[in-house]
Amino acid sequence: MKRGYSFDELAIVPGNTTRNPEQVEVSFRLKDFVFSIPVWAAAMDSVVDPDFASLMHDMGGLGVLNLEGINARYEHPESVLEEIACAPDDKSTLMLQKVYAEPIKENLIGERIRDIKARGSICAVSITPQNAKRLSPLACEAGTDMIVAQSTVTTARHISKSYRGLIFSELCASLKVPVVVGNCVSHDCALELMREGVWGILVGVGPGAACTTREVLGIGVPQATATMDCAAARDKYVKETGRYVAIITDGGIQKSDDLCKAFACGADAVMLGAILAQAEEAPGRGYHWGMSTPHPNLPRGARVQVGTYGSLRQILFGPTSDNLGRQNLIGALKTCMGLCGAANLQGMHHAELIIAPAIKTEGKYLQLKHQGE
Amino acid sequence: MKRGYSFDELAIVPGNTTRNPEQVEVSFRLKDFVFSIPVWAAAMDSVVDPDFASLMHDMGGLGVLNLEGINARYEHPESVLEEIACAPDDKSTLMLQKVYAEPIKENLIGERIRDIKARGSICAVSITPQNAKRLSPLACEAGTDMIVAQSTVTTARHISKSYRGLIFSELCASLKVPVVVGNCVSHDCALELMREGVWGILVGVGPGAACTTREVLGIGVPQATATMDCAAARDKYVKETGRYVAIITDGGIQKSDDLCKAFACGADAVMLGAILAQAEEAPGRGYHWGMSTPHPNLPRGARVQVGTYGSLRQILFGPTSDNLGRQNLIGALKTCMGLCGAANLQGMHHAELIIAPAIKTEGKYLQLKHQGE
Amino acid sequence: MKRGYSFDELAIVPGNTTRNPEQVEVSFRLKDFVFSIPVWAAAMDSVVDPDFASLMHDMGGLGVLNLEGINARYEHPESVLEEIACAPDDKSTLMLQKVYAEPIKENLIGERIRDIKARGSICAVSITPQNAKRLSPLACEAGTDMIVAQSTVTTARHISKSYRGLIFSELCASLKVPVVVGNCVSHDCALELMREGVWGILVGVGPGAACTTREVLGIGVPQATATMDCAAARDKYVKETGRYVAIITDGGIQKSDDLCKAFACGADAVMLGAILAQAEEAPGRGYHWGMSTPHPNLPRGARVQVGTYGSLRQILFGPTSDNLGRQNLIGALKTCMGLCGAANLQGMHHAELIIAPAIKTEGKYLQLKHQGE
Amino acid sequence: MKRGYSFDELAIVPGNTTRNPEQVEVSFRLKDFVFSIPVWAAAMDSVVDPDFASLMHDMGGLGVLNLEGINARYEHPESVLEEIACAPDDKSTLMLQKVYAEPIKENLIGERIRDIKARGSICAVSITPQNAKRLSPLACEAGTDMIVAQSTVTTARHISKSYRGLIFSELCASLKVPVVVGNCVSHDCALELMREGVWGILVGVGPGAACTTREVLGIGVPQATATMDCAAARDKYVKETGRYVAIITDGGIQKSDDLCKAFACGADAVMLGAILAQAEEAPGRGYHWGMSTPHPNLPRGARVQVGTYGSLRQILFGPTSDNLGRQNLIGALKTCMGLCGAANLQGMHHAELIIAPAIKTEGKYLQLKHQGE
Repeated sequence: MKRGYSFDELAIVPGNTTRNPEQVEVSFRLKDFVFSIPVWAAAMDSVVDPDFASLMHDMGGLGVLNLEGINARYEHPESVLEEIACAPDDKSTLMLQKVYAEPIKENLIGERIRDIKARGSICAVSITPQNAKRLSPLACEAGTDMIVAQSTVTTARHISKSYRGLIFSELCASLKVPVVVGNCVSHDCALELMREGVWGILVGVGPGAACTTREVLGIGVPQATATMDCAAARDKYVKETGRYVAIITDGGIQKSDDLCKAFACGADAVMLGAILAQAEEAPGRGYHWGMSTPHPNLPRGARVQVGTYGSLRQILFGPTSDNLGRQNLIGALKTCMGLCGAANLQGMHHAELIIAPAIKTEGKYLQLKHQGE
Repeated sequence: MKRGYSFDELAIVPGNTTRNPEQVEVSFRLKDFVFSIPVWAAAMDSVVDPDFASLMHDMGGLGVLNLEGINARYEHPESVLEEIACAPDDKSTLMLQKVYAEPIKENLIGERIRDIKARGSICAVSITPQNAKRLSPLACEAGTDMIVAQSTVTTARHISKSYRGLIFSELCASLKVPVVVGNCVSHDCALELMREGVWGILVGVGPGAACTTREVLGIGVPQATATMDCAAARDKYVKETGRYVAIITDGGIQKSDDLCKAFACGADAVMLGAILAQAEEAPGRGYHWGMSTPHPNLPRGARVQVGTYGSLRQILFGPTSDNLGRQNLIGALKTCMGLCGAANLQGMHHAELIIAPAIKTEGKYLQLKHQGE
Repeated sequence: MKRGYSFDELAIVPGNTTRNPEQVEVSFRLKDFVFSIPVWAAAMDSVVDPDFASLMHDMGGLGVLNLEGINARYEHPESVLEEIACAPDDKSTLMLQKVYAEPIKENLIGERIRDIKARGSICAVSITPQNAKRLSPLACEAGTDMIVAQSTVTTARHISKSYRGLIFSELCASLKVPVVVGNCVSHDCALELMREGVWGILVGVGPGAACTTREVLGIGVPQATATMDCAAARDKYVKETGRYVAIITDGGIQKSDDLCKAFACGADAVMLGAILAQAEEAPGRGYHWGMSTPHPNLPRGARVQVGTYGSLRQILFGPTSDNLGRQNLIGALKTCMGLCGAANLQGMHHAELIIAPAIKTEGKYLQLKHQGE
Repeated sequence: MKRGYSFDELAIVPGNTTRNPEQVEVSFRLKDFVFSIPVWAAAMDSVVDPDFASLMHDMGGLGVLNLEGINARYEHPESVLEEIACAPDDKSTLMLQKVYAEPIKENLIGERIRDIKARGSICAVSITPQNAKRLSPLACEAGTDMIVAQSTVTTARHISKSYRGLIFSELCASLKVPVVVGNCVSHDCALELMREGVWGILVGVGPGAACTTREVLGIGVPQATATMDCAAARDKYVKETGRYVAIITDGGIQKSDDLCKAFACGADAVMLGAILAQAEEAPGRGYHWGMSTPHPNLPRGARVQVGTYGSLRQILFGPTSDNLGRQNLIGALKTCMGLCGAANLQGMHHAELIIAPAIKTEGKYLQLKHQGE
């Protein structure tokens, strides 16, 4: 059996050359889209609504809107979000199950997309594979710039009785916009998906803050290893075909150190959930939950109280007095890249990683004080 | 020295093919018996009485009745179980020692078996090896369908002065019903038992929730490794002889993720204790203890308060709002198998496992909040 | 760098043969002395005084009296022990430093030994190497049966200015009684000491409950590895010379599981401190401390409150309602040996060990309950 | 990926020869300076001011004054330090950011150095690489004996737009005093710096008590591994050139055991922060913080309350009743060296290390007591 590593278990070794942070470039490209920061907001109702998508665009990143979430089920999502935020802890899963029992309204799909586009923002929407054939034409018609086909685990080959498995090569050929697929954690699975024509792969099964796939199903791959394996598939594929498919680490990033390590593991961008749900502008009102949380008979996740912690701008760019890595993510990334001597994100892929036990320095002092006094 | 792994240290890698959960088959066969779900209830007084055995049968599984427990020692077990549940924590071991000092009544053995059979259920009973020759004919006469010979560690070769060691080949030959033996944790020991003619092997020494064999005796093998080793013996034996002996993981399964991993490790079925003791219908009244707990001068275990947590049907099949893997075990197994692309349990034996550190996502948030605010 | 293992990280694999506990023999021999149980009480003032030494003899083991402790410094140790037990926590180290500043009285040495011998007990006394030449003739004259030369780390080659390093070969030749030396943790060091003529080696640096050598000096070897390495030296030495030198694991044994594992690691006997300090008859009155605790300017240890927990007989032989491995040590050892199929202690040296993560089953339930309710 | 080790994960194996502590020599040489103890106080405002530098000199070590800290920004540092100590916890980082926004006063640089020299002490001052060319001539003119060029990560090759990267070979050639550089954690980086002409290398990125570089940036190498790697570079360099460059472990040492292990890993000296900030004479008044804590928009560290715990003399030389390794550091080092048979620090480089899990003995007792009573 292979040993998988989470970000917590690794550290980045500083380089033999260093570089001033302002000499560092963090832009990221997916097909023809260039983002000035390599950060996407996750397609979760606690993170992205049309307002937040637009704000992410203004910051240089991207917010992916979930086309099967509250915004597609309710005309007025605000009251629903308020209701979720106010539910007592022990009723929150039940409440989410109820909220998501409401059917998707096809008319809302176009409305949400047009809302995002009307502000001049790049628009990306997520759909589950089983609904992709039905909903993606509607989304394209409304003007989306990108389709994200996403479920807990998505493979190029799905066996189903109730619907013909989605053929990604057909989907990619039929749409004019690039298709991004997730989630995926293994080299072979990523490679197969690339060969179907997708332009981006979301990496991550099991490690998210609001997801308990691993705790309920036992399924998951530690996020550093998953990122490295899928990045190796990208490197193999680009060598074979010349086409560069973006690897986007989705899950397991809770602080700026995790974010820096994702790039050292080979990521081209990161998709953030919990850490952006902490923004004042996030629709979750200090709460965060995932799309498998409201599953009607096997919920895999919970409503987590993440708190509200600064504006999105502060979380991404600072300035900050926080020393725990929750704010100024881009500043931390640039400083880290500078200490590794990396001029851009692809240079950062060559940073050396070392297996290193997590350190708890403050705790040790408290312990010493407690024992001795 | 070899490294042993517990379920906690492993995760299942999703497959390169996926499958809808309804396209998945979880039935399990032992000799001529086919169970529609691969779950047996453990032969513990807090889990199985005749009522519960019958209920397990109705659900498609099996409940094994302990023929040396309270049901075989007391005409009216209810009051004894009530007394155990009411004992204060610090007196509970002493109380159990007292309760189990009562001798086994041979007449009750037939009565309990006939009670189970009268409801149309498959009946399985457990006996310790030292009592097997005396009690198994009585059990067969009363109509049991299966004999489970079970003790902390059972081998094909036992050295004793006070009684002639049980010869399993003789026992298997003398009985018309299949014999299942446990517990066992090593490849060679499992293989020897198979060669004696048994039809099933219970795997597990030391890992149970209500068992402290490892803490008191230092003996035990982590459950994932034990399951893999015994499954390897089964695969070797079936190749040699064509006879398929069932490997039943017994112990170390506390949530649905552990259950899923047991099958990925090679199990044909699982025997559950604590998780079923949580059922409303379980005789333990929210408490759980093992058969080595009341040992008169070296207790190895404790009465554990596991709580009451839904009906047996809900624990096995949901629906549920629980997101911690304590309910809808079969739903979780089918979903997991689907994500691994496994059509049946033997397909699940080929799922890839990865060594992965346990994750604690919620805790991390709480910690961050505590540090920062 | 080599990986060292503590007992906590290992588990014993049950054997392919099993044996009834009453078919198991646990006696242990050192030169001409045969002890019916392989347990020595440590030469610590909280564990052994003349009364306790005599009691250990009656149980079939041995209590080693420290000839540089309170019994050799004070005519009436009881009041001193009482004073230690009553000291407030934050003053206890200071108090111990003061108590041990009192000089050793040579007249008391003979008196204590004669007291033990007068009761018909085998007498063993411990002396530090630097005092061995001065005190061991006095001890032999008073009738001691064994000399234990013990310090934090003892080697066959010590470099000193203030006294000529003790030459063990000279000491062994000059005394009629067998010499046991400690403490030692490496193969080569143990082998050198055997070649000097000693009959027993105490194994252990750093792991004791009342010793912080490792925390203060960084020095120590995990106890399972230390025992295995020294046992390998014994096996090599007996093959070369035919003389069997006893390996006595001293430290790191806090429960019966650790004790069982010591023998699986190759120990011939164990020396117990904290676990015997819990006996009602122990002089420590529920407290425990080591000989490096009162060091005048670099204390390495603390007074630990271990509690009083049953009589010595109960701790060694049960019966008990304790399920945590603190009572019936010999019962646990015999049961463990039976499950390994070992007929005697040397058979137990062949038991298989597996690297296994520590399990915390009860904790998991409490955690689940806490999360879910 | 390579596995990195922290001091916590290692233990020192005692030697096959032992030696009395008074037979042990701990002096340390850097170019022409000989220090009777191998301890430097870190260039942090909570640790070194001119008074403390002088006190360290009197003890036989060295205190490095930070030339970009409070002493260089404020005419009267006392009131600023008092203000920092009095800030409430949740405002402390903000307060530090404000305090360090005050510009450096060039006139104070000479004043502080002359103050130290006036007391007859060796004077060492630290400067960041970007200010080295401007400030080091001023420092030399004022009479400093040593220049320490120090930042989070310093390499021989730095790329910058705003200033020409510091060329260490030029700096070393231009100054009459030896240059020490830090921080560095890898073999190659250390070797390059040695080839530039430096006389000492500070080793450590990420492990300090008041530094969260690893938590914010993900950057760091466990301190034992970093020390070993840089010591290997020193050994290679001395073999090539005959010039011995000192390796000074800076960070990750919180108790005497860590200090002892640093030398076993190959260190020639240690630089201590938190442990000396605990001295009664330290300017931090029981608080400790690092130079990256007050970073204006990405603070990496916090004000940590370390407490006040004895005089500097007691911390370095005892006597003590502390048994946790916080006092009598030199006594602990000498005792440890004696148990390893090392006559001097270079002998200590040959002590054997073993990978050993951290032990928590007292905790185990408390846990047992809690479970059982």
